Amino acid sequence: MTRKTGKKPSGKDSGRAGARGKGRVPARPGRAGAMGKGAVSAAPGREGVMVGTGNLLVLGSVALDSVKTPFGEVSEVLGGSASFFATAASYFTAVSVIAVVGEDFPERHLDFLRQRDIDLTGLERRQGKTFRWRGEYSKTLDTQLNVFETFRPHVPASHQSPDMLFLANIDPDLQRGVLEQVKRPRLVACDTMNFWIEGKRDALFRLLTEVDVLVINDGEARALGQNSNLVAVSRMILGAGPKTLIIKRGEYGVLMFTGDRVFAVPAFPLEEVKDPTGAGDCFAGGFMGYLARTGKLSEDALRRAVVYGSVMASFAVEAFSLDRLRGLEYKDIEARFGAFKQMTVFEEF
Amino acid sequence: MTRKTGKKPSGKDSGRAGARGKGRVPARPGRAGAMGKGAVSAAPGREGVMVGTGNLLVLGSVALDSVKTPFGEVSEVLGGSASFFATAASYFTAVSVIAVVGEDFPERHLDFLRQRDIDLTGLERRQGKTFRWRGEYSKTLDTQLNVFETFRPHVPASHQSPDMLFLANIDPDLQRGVLEQVKRPRLVACDTMNFWIEGKRDALFRLLTEVDVLVINDGEARALGQNSNLVAVSRMILGAGPKTLIIKRGEYGVLMFTGDRVFAVPAFPLEEVKDPTGAGDCFAGGFMGYLARTGKLSEDALRRAVVYGSVMASFAVEAFSLDRLRGLEYKDIEARFGAFKQMTVFEEF
Repeated sequence: MTRKTGKKPSGKDSGRAGARGKGRVPARPGRAGAMGKGAVSAAPGREGVMVGTGNLLVLGSVALDSVKTPFGEVSEVLGGSASFFATAASYFTAVSVIAVVGEDFPERHLDFLRQRDIDLTGLERRQGKTFRWRGEYSKTLDTQLNVFETFRPHVPASHQSPDMLFLANIDPDLQRGVLEQVKRPRLVACDTMNFWIEGKRDALFRLLTEVDVLVINDGEARALGQNSNLVAVSRMILGAGPKTLIIKRGEYGVLMFTGDRVFAVPAFPLEEVKDPTGAGDCFAGGFMGYLARTGKLSEDALRRAVVYGSVMASFAVEAFSLDRLRGLEYKDIEARFGAFKQMTVFEEF
Repeated sequence: MTRKTGKKPSGKDSGRAGARGKGRVPARPGRAGAMGKGAVSAAPGREGVMVGTGNLLVLGSVALDSVKTPFGEVSEVLGGSASFFATAASYFTAVSVIAVVGEDFPERHLDFLRQRDIDLTGLERRQGKTFRWRGEYSKTLDTQLNVFETFRPHVPASHQSPDMLFLANIDPDLQRGVLEQVKRPRLVACDTMNFWIEGKRDALFRLLTEVDVLVINDGEARALGQNSNLVAVSRMILGAGPKTLIIKRGEYGVLMFTGDRVFAVPAFPLEEVKDPTGAGDCFAGGFMGYLARTGKLSEDALRRAVVYGSVMASFAVEAFSLDRLRGLEYKDIEARFGAFKQMTVFEEF
């Protein structure tokens, strides 16, 4: 009935010691050692530099998207939260995917993910059709869950000790099911959406008691907190489990609440936002990829992670699907990180 | 027919050498001297410290506001762009007002402005009723222009050499009329609104050729630039005269475009935004007050000015009318400036 796909052609084990990180950040030797035992590995990279790799696992969707925006239209392109997340994260760290596709899922999309050194051991291929999403400028027009409807995520033995885990938007009971299949990671983050906030509120709050970071957009935050004021919402949510709440505000950037601290970063002003689909998942991928890469969870590290997430989101919206990331190099990421610094810095007095 | 009001009870001349700056920033002796000739003066302040005062002039409205928000309701309180602007600016520098009120304008509001050392030599009191505005959470419900309708601003001789000039939202021909009555200031900034953007577009663009900084909200920017993308809008507007474009985005903060540089600062997250009326004018007052105070117009100074403007706006919305500023002290402003820094800072790598 179900079979697995996406075995890495290199036959590397899941410990990812050999992860080479095409286009991935070159590790600074002094930093790789800052990680916890087993949390990072370093090996000569493809480009002859040291690559540090935290072990990051994502549960989400791999989908075929059809999108129309004022800048054009695409049909059945690579989409899904796990695809966006993993591709963005792959610039920073080793990342593995738990997801499902149907028989019709094109091999070329798997090849793209494999080329980014994304571990697809946990990607099931099942009888039936792949999850399809159709939208216009982020507004959903049609959703065909297909194989995603009966998806019961299974975490392969090789992935049961992730350093960090991201539970993308999916039924909160399934998110919790994955959490129960793994040894408690150093960091667990999750996303959700209004459908679950309204329909499975209790299950969602049960999940939140086990989550470190909640990453949602402002509309979802207001619905979850049942309050239009985001400061009030943050107090409520931080009281429900998460130590950190990240609120994505689209073109207005991101707010991060941690305890009584708040960090705000604007979105990168772009002249053409061709397709916002996946921007939030690319944000989460950059955010957690950076954290897994460094192994640090200090306020400073979280802030830099938010900026790296914003950088990845800013690239994602410059083209349809993951097209902007296809030719992206790590130096482009560092350059835009520098542009974020330039855009936000001011002298104290 | 018309008579002047608001002569300063102290009888000080308009050179403002003696401006004492209640609650105003104490000057750092080394900085006061950085101003151009005649642009700043320093004298022992009320609190025994040196006070540096640039010479800032504002054209705008002094009004009676009736406002309803979810937090309460007030009737015929002190409002108007010039009132908000001047009160915010008065924490930083000497400020003079060109405006008009009717016979019915309460003396206690003038007393409040005078207590802030705001020069009211240019405030006319005319026969008729004062400009009244009624709104709900910044949405206009009713406007009675009254004496404001036939207002023809006259700049008294004592105010014809301002160091900096702010032309608040009013007919662009009247804004230009004031510009023609003064010796070219070091910095001219202006605001406008959709009514003039739609109704007097040519006059507005004529004004813009003589303006250094345009301060408008995002809706106005899109209407003026006839484009929904703010980066595209900034290029168009910066090509029309202003060297700097500041776009106010309410709860999302401020964008400043200067040449090919962009600076973004978030709004201060508040748990209760009691009344947003006047926030934009308090922003402009803090922005120009700081610039007039320091006399610097570098990118660094403009950025700090944007933050000081954001600080003043964040206080303004915490209460109705100018009530939050009644007891505000300069150290409160510095503390919130520090909070803005804390909220936005991140380490580069």
